[in-house]
Amino acid sequence: MSTATPEMTRKEIPDCYPSRQLTEPHTQDRVDPVVYGHAQGGHGLSEAQLLAFDRDGYLFFPELFPRDEIRSYAGELQRLAAKGGTGPETILEPSSGDVRSIFQVHRNHAVFRDLSRDRRLTRIAFGLLDSDVYIHQSRVNLKPGFVGKEFYWHSDFETWHVEDGMPRMRAVSCSINLTDNHATNGPVMVIPGSHRQFVACVGQTPENHYQKSLRRQEYGVPDQAILSRLAAERGIEAPVGPAGSVLFFDCNLLHGSNSNITPFPRSNIFFVYNSTLNRLTDPFGNIPPRPEFVATRDGVDPILRNG
Amino acid sequence: MSTATPEMTRKEIPDCYPSRQLTEPHTQDRVDPVVYGHAQGGHGLSEAQLLAFDRDGYLFFPELFPRDEIRSYAGELQRLAAKGGTGPETILEPSSGDVRSIFQVHRNHAVFRDLSRDRRLTRIAFGLLDSDVYIHQSRVNLKPGFVGKEFYWHSDFETWHVEDGMPRMRAVSCSINLTDNHATNGPVMVIPGSHRQFVACVGQTPENHYQKSLRRQEYGVPDQAILSRLAAERGIEAPVGPAGSVLFFDCNLLHGSNSNITPFPRSNIFFVYNSTLNRLTDPFGNIPPRPEFVATRDGVDPILRNG
Repeated sequence: MSTATPEMTRKEIPDCYPSRQLTEPHTQDRVDPVVYGHAQGGHGLSEAQLLAFDRDGYLFFPELFPRDEIRSYAGELQRLAAKGGTGPETILEPSSGDVRSIFQVHRNHAVFRDLSRDRRLTRIAFGLLDSDVYIHQSRVNLKPGFVGKEFYWHSDFETWHVEDGMPRMRAVSCSINLTDNHATNGPVMVIPGSHRQFVACVGQTPENHYQKSLRRQEYGVPDQAILSRLAAERGIEAPVGPAGSVLFFDCNLLHGSNSNITPFPRSNIFFVYNSTLNRLTDPFGNIPPRPEFVATRDGVDPILRNG
Repeated sequence: MSTATPEMTRKEIPDCYPSRQLTEPHTQDRVDPVVYGHAQGGHGLSEAQLLAFDRDGYLFFPELFPRDEIRSYAGELQRLAAKGGTGPETILEPSSGDVRSIFQVHRNHAVFRDLSRDRRLTRIAFGLLDSDVYIHQSRVNLKPGFVGKEFYWHSDFETWHVEDGMPRMRAVSCSINLTDNHATNGPVMVIPGSHRQFVACVGQTPENHYQKSLRRQEYGVPDQAILSRLAAERGIEAPVGPAGSVLFFDCNLLHGSNSNITPFPRSNIFFVYNSTLNRLTDPFGNIPPRPEFVATRDGVDPILRNG
């Protein structure tokens, strides 16, 4: 089992996870490990944590960052959002036109660049992926109160594989709460264990689909019967905690969120750590790659495990 | 302080809770009691329960009905929904066309009529309202999995007062879970204590507004700043429990629900007990009354406390 290197092109790399190619939805077993770093002691992750991540596909770290520090990140986000959005990195709410997300903050904003390389986060990524890493995607999300919209179930990896050319499952996402998360303000929900299967979706992907999908998902949508089966097996969890809490989850874990009519916003920072051994090739969906601000392809800036 | 009797007409009854008349939102204190039945011992409600209802505006009764009995109600609902909807009592989802709610089940379907008069429920209504009661409105809701839509914050009383002519706050709603409620499948959320203020809304009500509002609320919407203040004071609660659990809440308690993307539906039966001393007059919004299936006006069929 070889891992993709940057020099390889699409033609040389087998598609281990075909999706959006058939007319019937189906699942297949994951062919990649979940935890790569087990043998190496996990960079400070306990045996129990590694086992839990392997089984559930996520780890929740309550209050990993102190409240004061989080407040400064939240302030930075407010400043960026107040400037409004002109560049493509800024995604607006379809109805209100308010800023919903800002992408590529790890490259464009020093505060978030430093945070993305903070050892409190990267040690976890190293421990799970057992390699140097880089930021595949970063963004800050404002999910406002009252009008926060739902985000339907999806596997990030499915999209990254089909639309970005991420060859294998060797990436983890990290969501840092900038606000207190409650059960009631539309927290991220996960289907524990769903990362161990790959849910192939139906339908071809239209070009430039990403401009819409960042606001509303229409392709790469898992089948209802499959979702029902997976949720019946292990239920649905919504790990919640105060501002400063951090959720790490596997790139293939099914997750989504309900709307948020409460007055309490649910802002967060989102970093995706991908292994440098799993760099992007051509998209497996045979479409042009999405732009650099959504999926790092040329601007890889490794974060070294022993740096 | 007099209470409305059926013989009184709109002209003779002062509007104690004006709403949708001004251009600025505001709140006023409630002029009516919350618990009427206190002195009489509450028909089996404990002192602590009466105090909690007075303070919070709701009471939650986990598994008030056994699972077998609930299953038979759920089966009846499925039969009714499968027949589809032709009459006005059946409300469809705007997008999918699936049945969302069926109104007036306490009159049209024997099983639900019997349930609406079941002592396990009515004793609670008697205990809170201290009078004979009748069903002001009844419905069964199917809130399906995957596509269950959010329902924005509102006070039922605000609508019943403006659009139906309910004079005073002497009614309680009762929601019976037909499915297990989780924090994640869009449960009813309440703002505890919000029943003690009346949130006057802005905007005139168009005629026949109800045909739309049963699917999506656009009038009688509380102001965001007021909601923020109320939620900051007491937070937001989502009382959840297994099928058979029952939520009683005051007619003026602010409540709403988020969407439901989980595979788990959230069906329930909804009865509104209004005091026979609080029967409808002409709508205070100076619009024609809504139809009988939404608001009982002519077909009052009292449930006697000592019957």
